[in-house]
Amino acid sequence: MRLTTEQWFSRLQDSICAELMEGGETVPFREDKWEREGGGGGRTRVLQEGTVIEKGGVNFSAVHGLLPQPVQESFKVDESEFFATGVSIVLHPRNPMVPIIHMNVRYFELTDKQSGKLSRQWFGGGIDLTPHYVDPEDARFFHQTLKETCDRFHPDYYPHFKAWADDYFYIPHRNETRGIGGIFFDRLSANDTFRIEDRWEFVKAVGETFTKVYLPLIRKNQQKTFTEEQKQWQLYRRGRYVEFNLVYDAGTKFGLQTSGRIESILMSLPLHVSWPYNFQPAAGSEEEKTLRWLRKGVDWV
Amino acid sequence: MRLTTEQWFSRLQDSICAELMEGGETVPFREDKWEREGGGGGRTRVLQEGTVIEKGGVNFSAVHGLLPQPVQESFKVDESEFFATGVSIVLHPRNPMVPIIHMNVRYFELTDKQSGKLSRQWFGGGIDLTPHYVDPEDARFFHQTLKETCDRFHPDYYPHFKAWADDYFYIPHRNETRGIGGIFFDRLSANDTFRIEDRWEFVKAVGETFTKVYLPLIRKNQQKTFTEEQKQWQLYRRGRYVEFNLVYDAGTKFGLQTSGRIESILMSLPLHVSWPYNFQPAAGSEEEKTLRWLRKGVDWV
Repeated sequence: MRLTTEQWFSRLQDSICAELMEGGETVPFREDKWEREGGGGGRTRVLQEGTVIEKGGVNFSAVHGLLPQPVQESFKVDESEFFATGVSIVLHPRNPMVPIIHMNVRYFELTDKQSGKLSRQWFGGGIDLTPHYVDPEDARFFHQTLKETCDRFHPDYYPHFKAWADDYFYIPHRNETRGIGGIFFDRLSANDTFRIEDRWEFVKAVGETFTKVYLPLIRKNQQKTFTEEQKQWQLYRRGRYVEFNLVYDAGTKFGLQTSGRIESILMSLPLHVSWPYNFQPAAGSEEEKTLRWLRKGVDWV
Repeated sequence: MRLTTEQWFSRLQDSICAELMEGGETVPFREDKWEREGGGGGRTRVLQEGTVIEKGGVNFSAVHGLLPQPVQESFKVDESEFFATGVSIVLHPRNPMVPIIHMNVRYFELTDKQSGKLSRQWFGGGIDLTPHYVDPEDARFFHQTLKETCDRFHPDYYPHFKAWADDYFYIPHRNETRGIGGIFFDRLSANDTFRIEDRWEFVKAVGETFTKVYLPLIRKNQQKTFTEEQKQWQLYRRGRYVEFNLVYDAGTKFGLQTSGRIESILMSLPLHVSWPYNFQPAAGSEEEKTLRWLRKGVDWV
């Protein structure tokens, strides 16, 4: 499973980058290969000041080594070797009419140090969307496409993982969801219903859904004109994205604590952000309408 | 002590705002009075797009009520009533040659719910400086002035509180201090050496040091010209300020967890911020020199 997942994720990074370039982006990704001191490494691909993307990353990594002490404690396992591989994407578009997108797909396994035996293996990930302006039609298309992918594997997947995303991408101190959610899942391991290979087929399908769901949103919205006020609103909403990622996001926290490659982890932070004091959108404005959509439990499909 | 501290801090807010206006700022502070559901409230004064200050707040609050459950556990106390009052300041100047400053002075006390007796009382606070460009002469003036204030009360205060600031204002994932530090102290209570009144006199002196230490830095640097590249560097360094405040700052965390007034707490976040991917200043540049100063244990005096 290590070799299989690592190779497939590495190719997924290639194909997503290629499809984004075909989808209208003209500025190439810059690639940084890095190695991890404890074992493994990654290939970070970041694009900045592009035609479509203001800043974004499509990152691949495959790391391994001794499980850090604090993680060992939180996982309640003995001394273990871990292996983790996956693809992480955050794209902050230039045009405020194009939504921010995030995807992560990953495989994780633990080997007991004493016995040398595989003790745990699971998949995690998801795709979620953060529009600066919520367009219910786009939101429906986004969730419908994710639902179709989920439904190919199990009828419970979409409702379960959609609710999980609502709970996960939530900013308690703002009482807002980060965006319109999507799907989120973690620790998908083998059980009575699924073999580990079934989980893997699902995760591959999620990875392949990324461009299917995002390229149409770029095509539809990229040419729309916008005002200076709408650009300001985008910078303001990006502030929420930063608040979520730095205060609550488990992946970011894990990365900062375990001394991952900081610039690869924090590629998720936008190029330009603004925090005006106590900004309140005008009653009845498009901005206020968007705020009203940012709550848990909306049935988009 | 409640009434004394609350009244004095409230007047400190007034005098600091007035002195900043005399010090060259022409845009007035906007005042927002707010009440806390559980008891007490505050007076937030924020200034945005000023002549000297791009965004900054000089906030006063005096809150009380039942100590929230998680805080009760971390303090290891029985059910208690708390009272907290203080002044918090963060100023992000417009000109990158003027440093960012932060001050907090606060009084905290706990009353046992059962007995109705005062069970704990302490002071906390400090002043620290975050220059976008470290000027060793300004840094020396800043630390020397703080040291003189400290030395009036105890010879150990400055070395102790200076080291505390170095440890506190540190960003582990960047291996950088937030700025050039200053002084930081917490839980200063009565002991064999100090009565609670002695601690109070010291905290008042710290509050009075704020304008003495910052107005000269405005006067000296405010008229300096700067390039577009230097402004970009300022936006980039502000990103570190956000990373520290959202990931590590105990006061911010406490505020977000206990549902304080979010816009008052997050007034510390700058108006404009930038996170370019993997920015590295040129070898030998002023920016690189500044990075080399951002470490613990520099003896500025």
